[in-house]
Amino acid sequence: MAAFRVGNKSQGSGGMVPSPRLFASNHREDATNGSGPRPVGPLRPKLFPAGKPRKRAPIWQAAVFASVALNVTLLIHHYVVVGQPGTAASSPHHHQEHHHQEHQACELHPDAGSGGKSRAARAPSTGKPAVTPDSVINLDHGDPTMFEAFWRETGDAAEIVIPGWQTMSYFSDVTNVCWFLEPGFDHEVRRLHRLVGNAAVDGYHVLVGTGSTQLFMAALYALSPPGADEPMSVVSTAPYYSSYPAVTDFLQSGLFKWAGDANAFNGDTYIELVCSPNNPDGSIREAVLASETGKAVHDLAYYWPQYTPITRRADHDIMLFTVSKSTGHAGTRIGWALVKDRGIAQKMTKFIELNTIGVSKDSQLRAAKVLKAVSDGYDELSAEGKQAHHHHRLFDFGRRKMVERWSMLREAAAASGIFSLPEETSDYCNFTKEMAATNPAFAWLRCDREDVEDCASYLRGHKILTRSGSQFGADPRYVRSACSTGTTPMTSSSSASPLSSEVKREYDG
Amino acid sequence: MAAFRVGNKSQGSGGMVPSPRLFASNHREDATNGSGPRPVGPLRPKLFPAGKPRKRAPIWQAAVFASVALNVTLLIHHYVVVGQPGTAASSPHHHQEHHHQEHQACELHPDAGSGGKSRAARAPSTGKPAVTPDSVINLDHGDPTMFEAFWRETGDAAEIVIPGWQTMSYFSDVTNVCWFLEPGFDHEVRRLHRLVGNAAVDGYHVLVGTGSTQLFMAALYALSPPGADEPMSVVSTAPYYSSYPAVTDFLQSGLFKWAGDANAFNGDTYIELVCSPNNPDGSIREAVLASETGKAVHDLAYYWPQYTPITRRADHDIMLFTVSKSTGHAGTRIGWALVKDRGIAQKMTKFIELNTIGVSKDSQLRAAKVLKAVSDGYDELSAEGKQAHHHHRLFDFGRRKMVERWSMLREAAAASGIFSLPEETSDYCNFTKEMAATNPAFAWLRCDREDVEDCASYLRGHKILTRSGSQFGADPRYVRSACSTGTTPMTSSSSASPLSSEVKREYDG
Repeated sequence: MAAFRVGNKSQGSGGMVPSPRLFASNHREDATNGSGPRPVGPLRPKLFPAGKPRKRAPIWQAAVFASVALNVTLLIHHYVVVGQPGTAASSPHHHQEHHHQEHQACELHPDAGSGGKSRAARAPSTGKPAVTPDSVINLDHGDPTMFEAFWRETGDAAEIVIPGWQTMSYFSDVTNVCWFLEPGFDHEVRRLHRLVGNAAVDGYHVLVGTGSTQLFMAALYALSPPGADEPMSVVSTAPYYSSYPAVTDFLQSGLFKWAGDANAFNGDTYIELVCSPNNPDGSIREAVLASETGKAVHDLAYYWPQYTPITRRADHDIMLFTVSKSTGHAGTRIGWALVKDRGIAQKMTKFIELNTIGVSKDSQLRAAKVLKAVSDGYDELSAEGKQAHHHHRLFDFGRRKMVERWSMLREAAAASGIFSLPEETSDYCNFTKEMAATNPAFAWLRCDREDVEDCASYLRGHKILTRSGSQFGADPRYVRSACSTGTTPMTSSSSASPLSSEVKREYDG
Repeated sequence: MAAFRVGNKSQGSGGMVPSPRLFASNHREDATNGSGPRPVGPLRPKLFPAGKPRKRAPIWQAAVFASVALNVTLLIHHYVVVGQPGTAASSPHHHQEHHHQEHQACELHPDAGSGGKSRAARAPSTGKPAVTPDSVINLDHGDPTMFEAFWRETGDAAEIVIPGWQTMSYFSDVTNVCWFLEPGFDHEVRRLHRLVGNAAVDGYHVLVGTGSTQLFMAALYALSPPGADEPMSVVSTAPYYSSYPAVTDFLQSGLFKWAGDANAFNGDTYIELVCSPNNPDGSIREAVLASETGKAVHDLAYYWPQYTPITRRADHDIMLFTVSKSTGHAGTRIGWALVKDRGIAQKMTKFIELNTIGVSKDSQLRAAKVLKAVSDGYDELSAEGKQAHHHHRLFDFGRRKMVERWSMLREAAAASGIFSLPEETSDYCNFTKEMAATNPAFAWLRCDREDVEDCASYLRGHKILTRSGSQFGADPRYVRSACSTGTTPMTSSSSASPLSSEVKREYDG
């Protein structure tokens, strides 16, 4: 499943509350601009408000941390070029927004007829407003735009062309259990796992989902018998991914219900969610429950060489993956499951059939092309030869970035004197054939100040948004921060956005 | 919502049971082959088993109907060119299938680098096995490949190119209630509705979903208060779309539950589903319940000029549409909702956030391009001028095909003497500015023979698969047949497919 915030009870029922509606991109550049970093001057004065900071003062300490986040931001600017002319966010009225969007429409469409090959002319659309002096730093959630720099360098290797008449049918392969799975995607998933060695594929069914979140729900559905007296208990060891409880319970299903920390669970019948490397803390995990009637779902979204050494070929009954974390293509919404049992695979397929009648073929075709480009980068026997591909190795790129970021983050945390991070661990990686440290996608940060019982509130007071440990079933002295990998630290604007009143309420409240 | 079968209780829990796993495409052509119709010789002898059929004999009567279906099939062959080299279905073993799929992978990927513009070289992937002497005709569900012929003629107008680095972010427009909605898609949806005049868009929020099925679930979620004593009752006037009960109840939600025929419902609090034109019978509908505390969701998937005269600009609180029915792009899985109330729009967005964290951006970009091509076809002020677009008018194409098919079907039903169809109605169409008949996407067929109480079983005995009226909350003397519009009649192979045992069980059982 994705490392993504889903609302909790205290945040109301509005869409993606509060994080996605709060932040503004800090990396917006004019389409005609180059790839250089954007000055973040307007932001710095707010964090270093008057002259030199007092030594060891709370503001200074938080500022050190914020400074690291900004440096990470700057780092990203070196690699990310986002060219999107204009921004709807600066339009205060809805009508103007739509007008603006109409103006943008043509530019946002990839159009083979008019410069379809001109990469620089088109840009991702995130609609994030520009940075202002009132901006805050949003480290609450991740958005894998870090990988854009890599994909810009690969040229046409991961580009797709889809004619108007193609893939109109509902069906992809009616002989497959997963009848909406594009055979080309199935092939590239298997090929990549064989290359990386992170998961077994022989004897497994490949299922495709609209992101791995849909496959997570599909697994709950498939593992929960409909005629049971009680809903199936769904558990995970704390700190667990904050979306697990929300996604499990939002429809108040009679089939399954969230039952909290696996270590506190009493019973023999359950579904245990095992996230490894774990979101939020990056730890390598095994199932902690072992009843014969219990089932496990392994969420291996981060089990890729840029985040952790590959120490074994995982061969669990149900394993979940996603392109969001492996290649950075979050907007494509493609996840996959490797499922051993045919009956379970059929039930999971049935869930997706009832939920969305299959999964976008366009995105499957694109994901297949992207995975192919990753594998080709490591294929020494490819037509272009080893040398040509040397600069197009995704996991090398990702690991390099992660090592840089973690190095900075650990230095800053140590300098602050009030923040601590999980111990760095390392192991031999079967993929890279060398020792490698873990570089989790998120920092699981603890505030060690005795007078701070709620680290997220403390940081929010300094205009830094993080996700509280309490949302992960853990101590609120912890926060999860997306200032590292696969993620773009983002800033929030509280003045330019039409949502400014909501933003202000969030800070006041 | 899509006109698509979802399982019922009698069909077990396997994926897409039974229809999608039963049929084989009847239009498979070798990629090097031309666009002419494939001879259906192997099928005809089965339907006319020995010499001339006896007059008025049951077999002959069914055969007349089957013959019409075959003629429709032939008709489609004139317009649909499906070139897909090889077929996995002929491989009896799973391993061979995967091997075969690996071989196919490159051919299935649109690749700009090697013939990205060569339309004939690439083909839709449906994985449907070839026709054999044991094939049966599957009219159970629709697959909108009828529209392929149109899109082949439009050239590059609806083609998209997506570079590897594009649209990687989760976000599309954080200033919009629906933060994952691509502004270009929003724009083209509004433009097309303004052109056709079938729905109001000013003052409405546009929401995007993974098909309209996801938006249907989102609407149930948004309209069902979480703290209620009882789940919200979901009703629709019979005959109602057979997926409504299945999609409403498959997770056994505590928020909402299926409560059957709206006309039989007693109570003030409910969600009424109003499908118009109605699936299965094509009738134009209004809500039948009118409590102040009741809510309505209008499923207007078929409210387009190819199916029905456009008599008014619909302006209901929640209206659902999908590209599957409007343009034929079912594999793209894009639907949209027009929602008047901001709070409801936020809750529906929240559902999609929790369910799939947004909707494929690739498919949104594609759908925007497709809708743009439709509107451009009617835009007399376009750069290419009126004349150039005359042959690229989707609704004209669709209506022409539908009129042809319904004419044939009505003749065949009349000739059979045992099948009757709903009365043809017509009205003035505000879009075409002339009188137009209704041409429903499905035929709601009644078997008038007194000794036939279950029409679907009767037809199944003659190797024709349809969906029983009982699945629509109606008399089993009725069946819904997809032998008309927006759909491709398909044949099933019970010998070549690896699923042959399951197919046989289906017929035996």
